[in-house]
Amino acid sequence: MPATFPHDSVGLVEPSVLKFDQPLALVCGKTIPQYELIVETYGSLNEQRSNAILICHALSGDHHAAGYHSEEDPKPGWWDSCIGPGKPIDTNLFYVVSLNNLGGCNGSTGPTCVNPDSGELYGPDFPIVTVKDWVESQARLADRLGIEKWAAVVGGSLGGMQALRWSLDYPERLGHAVMIASTPKLTAQNIAFNEIARKAITSDPDFHQGHYYRHDTVPTKGLMLARMIGHITYLSDESMGEKFGRDLKRQAFNFGYDVEFEVESYLNYQGKRFSKTFDANTYLLMTRALDYFDPAADFGGSLEEALSRAVCSYLVLSFSSDWRFSPERSERLVESMVKAGKRVSYAEIDAPHGHDAFLIPTPRYMAIFTAYMRRIADEVAA
Amino acid sequence: MPATFPHDSVGLVEPSVLKFDQPLALVCGKTIPQYELIVETYGSLNEQRSNAILICHALSGDHHAAGYHSEEDPKPGWWDSCIGPGKPIDTNLFYVVSLNNLGGCNGSTGPTCVNPDSGELYGPDFPIVTVKDWVESQARLADRLGIEKWAAVVGGSLGGMQALRWSLDYPERLGHAVMIASTPKLTAQNIAFNEIARKAITSDPDFHQGHYYRHDTVPTKGLMLARMIGHITYLSDESMGEKFGRDLKRQAFNFGYDVEFEVESYLNYQGKRFSKTFDANTYLLMTRALDYFDPAADFGGSLEEALSRAVCSYLVLSFSSDWRFSPERSERLVESMVKAGKRVSYAEIDAPHGHDAFLIPTPRYMAIFTAYMRRIADEVAA
Repeated sequence: MPATFPHDSVGLVEPSVLKFDQPLALVCGKTIPQYELIVETYGSLNEQRSNAILICHALSGDHHAAGYHSEEDPKPGWWDSCIGPGKPIDTNLFYVVSLNNLGGCNGSTGPTCVNPDSGELYGPDFPIVTVKDWVESQARLADRLGIEKWAAVVGGSLGGMQALRWSLDYPERLGHAVMIASTPKLTAQNIAFNEIARKAITSDPDFHQGHYYRHDTVPTKGLMLARMIGHITYLSDESMGEKFGRDLKRQAFNFGYDVEFEVESYLNYQGKRFSKTFDANTYLLMTRALDYFDPAADFGGSLEEALSRAVCSYLVLSFSSDWRFSPERSERLVESMVKAGKRVSYAEIDAPHGHDAFLIPTPRYMAIFTAYMRRIADEVAA
Repeated sequence: MPATFPHDSVGLVEPSVLKFDQPLALVCGKTIPQYELIVETYGSLNEQRSNAILICHALSGDHHAAGYHSEEDPKPGWWDSCIGPGKPIDTNLFYVVSLNNLGGCNGSTGPTCVNPDSGELYGPDFPIVTVKDWVESQARLADRLGIEKWAAVVGGSLGGMQALRWSLDYPERLGHAVMIASTPKLTAQNIAFNEIARKAITSDPDFHQGHYYRHDTVPTKGLMLARMIGHITYLSDESMGEKFGRDLKRQAFNFGYDVEFEVESYLNYQGKRFSKTFDANTYLLMTRALDYFDPAADFGGSLEEALSRAVCSYLVLSFSSDWRFSPERSERLVESMVKAGKRVSYAEIDAPHGHDAFLIPTPRYMAIFTAYMRRIADEVAA
């Protein structure tokens, strides 16, 4: 590893693209004839092929979870805080697999790719993909990699939903499901935020009903607004207050609608940056996958019933200041797991960062997460 | 009163427009040469002129706080739950004055009015008005009505900020300030929500930098989005959950971006309705008045210091599920009042409706509010 990378980094990483030719029938009724998944792996698969960990990403995440793409890369992958030598998901112990989900815009097949049926970009015609479909595509990825059973499937937020779904759809194929800052379903308020974000995108005249590529444009303003709306829900009132308070951009009020407060400047910057790198159709798709997720719905609304088929152990972590997916909702999930007779460890971490806390290596979070993952490593080695 | 109105309604009411020719110098540095305020009054002014109550409205409110505009009027004024014979603000006891604030779009001078200097609509050139300016204009209104001292100045949310400002700017001119679901300043998160709402409006191509009137259009989509964003913050997660849960609009998922869930349908409806009646420039202006409000800022950030000049008594009410202006913030305000040696009564009302709870006549809220207002009536009569 070059000396320029921190000692607890996985260092230089390179994604690879895997092609799947077997059609994938989706929950929505449509079929994807063929697709590609872009994948990164960290660490080494052991001889028994028993130490593999699947990382599932959240709304705007991708396959690049840890390490650097070049020596000049200014930032590591999105979950570098938790993946690496000596970190909770210890690459000295585990073989870590991270992918960009189907429908994504970072290298896996999605709206920005060519539809083989039409020869044109999918765009808005890319079918709606659900969490269940992702699990199906990830199971095929496991087959391809020769992984019969994951030591654990791990994810935060929407990623945690995938871990939960894995435990229901392929109960024998994972030892542990780790759900961090997640929920078994969205509330009306969560759906409302998603709807407003979607409305912001689809109202942008540059959206062209999703065919913006054809018009050589991008719904930048809509996507920016969508991200700003989302961003508020990732932070806590407290953390925003600590970060910005009522600090002004200039020394005195300007009495107008240009940026006055630091928090406005920050949100605008974040929104603008995001709108330059993320695909609007993918954003729509990801928010719908969140909305639709509700595994209990197939069992008359009983999560306990849904969980009855699971055989893995669960780790559930929540964060005190997360108002997007509050600790209360993790607690209800854990209650259902307990009632269903499942093995579950639960901790609410006291952290001020809101939903984003799952990305931030606070001491108690790291300690609990690390201890649990070590237990898995011990099991795997035994 | 016609038999068609409820017995505890003020019945048929008619607004009147008052003209003010003395220029008003604003905090922003600009001056409004002349202006009109539209006003409604309920009840009768007593001989001593001591039983007048000023109602201050919130972001989207107006002068029509109680009663009906016609026999066919399907809905009473926005605070009819609290104003009327036998209600907390009892029109058998009080003379109630309610106005549309300067900068509004319901009859008082604002962006939709003609600028006498140019002969054209003000539009985006209407100067930024702050809470302090509103209090100044309301003091002139009091002069006009021959009211030397209000028995109380009363308001919810942004209205409560005006009540607080009254107590600092005209300490001798009010007996009581009633602040309901309010706060002495916005947090970074509050400002962030306002900024996104503004960005939604100004990003709408029909906004034309505020000159949409000239283009014979209205930034409907932006205003709709702004209202939807605001609306989420008025309701609690709990109340949205109770009202809509994950109920579907149709029987099964459609797997697309049209409305799937009832909560989406509701928000879209509310947003659309609002965008047809409210002026976008006024919306921008009102949100900035919220952002700027911070009376402590003139006193080195010390609210206690700011309050030292006040001589009125305060009633502060908050609602348990209000996450826009949480009970915690009312508590801090009350602490400052106590430290400053002011008379203050405080109650946190247990109510599930979020910020909107100040409009909903729940029993304990009504009981406490009524008892306090009766005390004022007794003082006035003594």
